[in-house]
Amino acid sequence: MRSFRTERRIRFSDCDPAGIVFYPQYFVLFNGAMEDWVDALGVGFADLVTRRRIGLPSVHIEADFQAPSRVGDAVHLLLEVERLGSRSLTLDWRCVAARDGEVRMRMRQVVVTTSLETHRAVAIPPDLRAAIEGDGPSLPSHT
Amino acid sequence: MRSFRTERRIRFSDCDPAGIVFYPQYFVLFNGAMEDWVDALGVGFADLVTRRRIGLPSVHIEADFQAPSRVGDAVHLLLEVERLGSRSLTLDWRCVAARDGEVRMRMRQVVVTTSLETHRAVAIPPDLRAAIEGDGPSLPSHT
Amino acid sequence: MRSFRTERRIRFSDCDPAGIVFYPQYFVLFNGAMEDWVDALGVGFADLVTRRRIGLPSVHIEADFQAPSRVGDAVHLLLEVERLGSRSLTLDWRCVAARDGEVRMRMRQVVVTTSLETHRAVAIPPDLRAAIEGDGPSLPSHT
Amino acid sequence: MRSFRTERRIRFSDCDPAGIVFYPQYFVLFNGAMEDWVDALGVGFADLVTRRRIGLPSVHIEADFQAPSRVGDAVHLLLEVERLGSRSLTLDWRCVAARDGEVRMRMRQVVVTTSLETHRAVAIPPDLRAAIEGDGPSLPSHT
Repeated sequence: MRSFRTERRIRFSDCDPAGIVFYPQYFVLFNGAMEDWVDALGVGFADLVTRRRIGLPSVHIEADFQAPSRVGDAVHLLLEVERLGSRSLTLDWRCVAARDGEVRMRMRQVVVTTSLETHRAVAIPPDLRAAIEGDGPSLPSHT
Repeated sequence: MRSFRTERRIRFSDCDPAGIVFYPQYFVLFNGAMEDWVDALGVGFADLVTRRRIGLPSVHIEADFQAPSRVGDAVHLLLEVERLGSRSLTLDWRCVAARDGEVRMRMRQVVVTTSLETHRAVAIPPDLRAAIEGDGPSLPSHT
Repeated sequence: MRSFRTERRIRFSDCDPAGIVFYPQYFVLFNGAMEDWVDALGVGFADLVTRRRIGLPSVHIEADFQAPSRVGDAVHLLLEVERLGSRSLTLDWRCVAARDGEVRMRMRQVVVTTSLETHRAVAIPPDLRAAIEGDGPSLPSHT
Repeated sequence: MRSFRTERRIRFSDCDPAGIVFYPQYFVLFNGAMEDWVDALGVGFADLVTRRRIGLPSVHIEADFQAPSRVGDAVHLLLEVERLGSRSLTLDWRCVAARDGEVRMRMRQVVVTTSLETHRAVAIPPDLRAAIEGDGPSLPSHT
């Protein structure tokens, strides 16, 4: 499952005094969507982090903020896995308006599978890799 | 609709280095649930705030944190309207574990319907009052 | 040192689309001030949490929001220790405007010294207790 | 003043269950530092946003996360203005450990001076431009 999609409504708490999403909050939204994706892959994000002690910290981010999002906007958070490395994943994210598909924000993110004990990179766990490479349907989930 | 219920999964971003929900984050969760409730009432939270310029700021909060919540926990956010005043609402909130109903956190909150132009209390809008007093079913929604 | 005071400027990121501090953010500000207080006591917050594995989670909160704070406002965060129990502390907090002393928000908070290993209450560490009971001067610090 | 530097202590609330700064929080720290910089320039961030209704939203971000920051770490937030356009600024940010100068995170950010009324780009205000081009000393400030 190399692509994934989830929905979210923009919250009052996501927005700033200009009335639009405060930009760091987009990264919080995408982080939630990544958790949903790992759950949908059948790996279980909480289990991965809490029991197996493997995290997915970001090492690189590039983001373009193309149009503002406002309180109450329904948005889709869309993921495409751009590259599946040995110890890293390159993820292409878009936040688009549910109404008309307008791209609000786009992010390219490199995350590294990391031991939360040693804080060193580790190989992508086989079950996670297999699930990403597989063709399982992307089950819509809710952020 | 004097009672309401929504579901939420505890996010990585909700939690602190102790591995449990950072307590201010519960208030963010409840704020999102209040938005869902106003939407479910048919009033529309974003419309209320953005177009009608009426906000629901808190003037009083009492909260008891009874058990910790952790990453991945499914929780229910439960609302009961305790009191419907002329310009204020007293809301009784609980966050309970979806699995076994354990109460994680409980909050009593007084919010005041407030003009976002004058920052003064205003009467609860008639449509909001009617919807709260009505017996409409509580449609589950997603935070 | 049973009283403590720190200063903070209200940030853009503390505020919501109504242009005022989003109420959960006050609790984040006070949490930062509590860290500064434990540092000023000579105990060291990071050392307490990270090395000694003792946290200070909240079990009870009461708060009154009396006047709004806006972007750029300089505020004082004032602490009085109301009660020093065997395993808990009752803290009385106020957020007041630096300019005129207007009370913006007041909170009574009960925190419990807790083992981050067992998640059970433990006795207040002797050095923390002695420092609170002592008459050391409150060194102003910056949030 | 094309360079600026401010200090910050990493807070408990900045960190995630892995015990390190949750990456979106770096952007919140830098946003606070940008506010301090605009204040130090003599322009006044709150006045710019609130009275003059000019904001500084981000349109592009590139960030590298090079080493983790932990609760209690003292960090410096360093700014260099890389490019001063007609309606945009390119800012080069680093977060470095106060103790040994280790670079924890680096960000290149493009912000656009924007009318908060029309949400369109406007020319960089003359006083802001002059202050950036000037040689005023960088006054250390506190986030």
